[in-house]
Amino acid sequence: MTQAKPGTVYLVGAGPGDPELLTRKAARLLKSADVVLHDDLVPQAVLDLAGAHTRVVSVGKRCKMRRITQAEINDLMIAEAHAGNSVVRLKSGDPMVFGRAGEEMDALRAARIAYEVVPGVTAMFAAAAALGKSLTDRRSSSKIILTTAHHATHNDAARLPLWPGPLPQDATLGIYMPGRDLHRLADELISAGMPPDLPCIVLRHISLPEQQAATLTLGTLAQFDPGTAPLLVLAGRPLRDHGEEVLRTVAAEEAINVR
Amino acid sequence: MTQAKPGTVYLVGAGPGDPELLTRKAARLLKSADVVLHDDLVPQAVLDLAGAHTRVVSVGKRCKMRRITQAEINDLMIAEAHAGNSVVRLKSGDPMVFGRAGEEMDALRAARIAYEVVPGVTAMFAAAAALGKSLTDRRSSSKIILTTAHHATHNDAARLPLWPGPLPQDATLGIYMPGRDLHRLADELISAGMPPDLPCIVLRHISLPEQQAATLTLGTLAQFDPGTAPLLVLAGRPLRDHGEEVLRTVAAEEAINVR
Repeated sequence: MTQAKPGTVYLVGAGPGDPELLTRKAARLLKSADVVLHDDLVPQAVLDLAGAHTRVVSVGKRCKMRRITQAEINDLMIAEAHAGNSVVRLKSGDPMVFGRAGEEMDALRAARIAYEVVPGVTAMFAAAAALGKSLTDRRSSSKIILTTAHHATHNDAARLPLWPGPLPQDATLGIYMPGRDLHRLADELISAGMPPDLPCIVLRHISLPEQQAATLTLGTLAQFDPGTAPLLVLAGRPLRDHGEEVLRTVAAEEAINVR
Repeated sequence: MTQAKPGTVYLVGAGPGDPELLTRKAARLLKSADVVLHDDLVPQAVLDLAGAHTRVVSVGKRCKMRRITQAEINDLMIAEAHAGNSVVRLKSGDPMVFGRAGEEMDALRAARIAYEVVPGVTAMFAAAAALGKSLTDRRSSSKIILTTAHHATHNDAARLPLWPGPLPQDATLGIYMPGRDLHRLADELISAGMPPDLPCIVLRHISLPEQQAATLTLGTLAQFDPGTAPLLVLAGRPLRDHGEEVLRTVAAEEAINVR
């Protein structure tokens, strides 16, 4: 049985949102840790799994009061661990995917703090499960690509393209944090060589009761109202295979409201 | 609380191997299902989570007695569900990644059996956690690619390349089921335009106590003894950043034995 150890930091994946999709290890660490430092995107139902004596602290960068910096988060983790506390650094999805785990581990190593990484279910796979759509069907698809359109401001000068060319025909691309300007996103991908009729599915609130998905194409992507919740955009030819059927089935089960 | 429902099939991810890395939902379904149909790669420690009254049946395609076909697995799932049983179809890793979930869902839809997909932690993210290596560091990497070198025999005629060109410089490629001929694999990638000095890490028994990793390059990949356990090959420039440090750190913790 996994128990959080004193003076140790655990970088833990909270999964896509549904508290049932946490790993058993993550749940046990949440229950036994002295302190949990969590991102904004982690839902309350997940935080409710923390132990009765666990301090639960939001270090979300969209904090109401002020913007907490990455350096402050690093310092807080290190201070708690130096004080002998067991620390869960809780990140939505998988901790190694589109978070600042690299910087946090560097800081922990430099401070000689013991740490461990606990993987989690990332949004793209929860999306595939919700849609009933295998991302690797030997009949049509064998490549899955995860990428992000969100770049730190200070890196804009060195900004690399979202994707540098056409997609392999058997690949499905998952774009995390696409931002609200889906029109610009679509333009960038079409300029890179992807066809306007490339099938796309946009999802939000993945794995939660309010989950929504819309089936579109690159050319019609801008018609999706991005709202304020974080989005995941899937794009690729494999989405066309059985796609109509998949979405009809899911809609019939009322698991997903297709706009 | 998730309980397996009669007449329903659950396509469930068993995670990378460590039973602590199952989701809470997967564990509850295993405990409450009437029958579990599992692949060969699911370790006994995971199967031990099944309920006292759960029938646990191997449908691994490397069965000792004879080769079970995909059609037979489909028929078995459908027969059990038609008999009113709750069925967990347990697949290693995530069910939508490099399994036959697409074919199994098609069969379930055709038979009008209710089904649900429960995502799991796939090997690539468990590998990143074990290595202490973020796959998306805003300083260097923003793309993750999962692919497979394993193709069904009858599809060989239409075989698509493992990767159709050079890798984007900020991408890490994960090759599932690379097969035992790592020399041919490396040749194929070098022919596609990847440099022989591209950093590679080969892992096996990911997340288990006997976990092993070796740090190599495409040019030296063939020096890794593939053994008989399934491998995961990571390749990409982002592995170079902090790579030495990462592996030293991990080796010092004796979490991984680097050959």
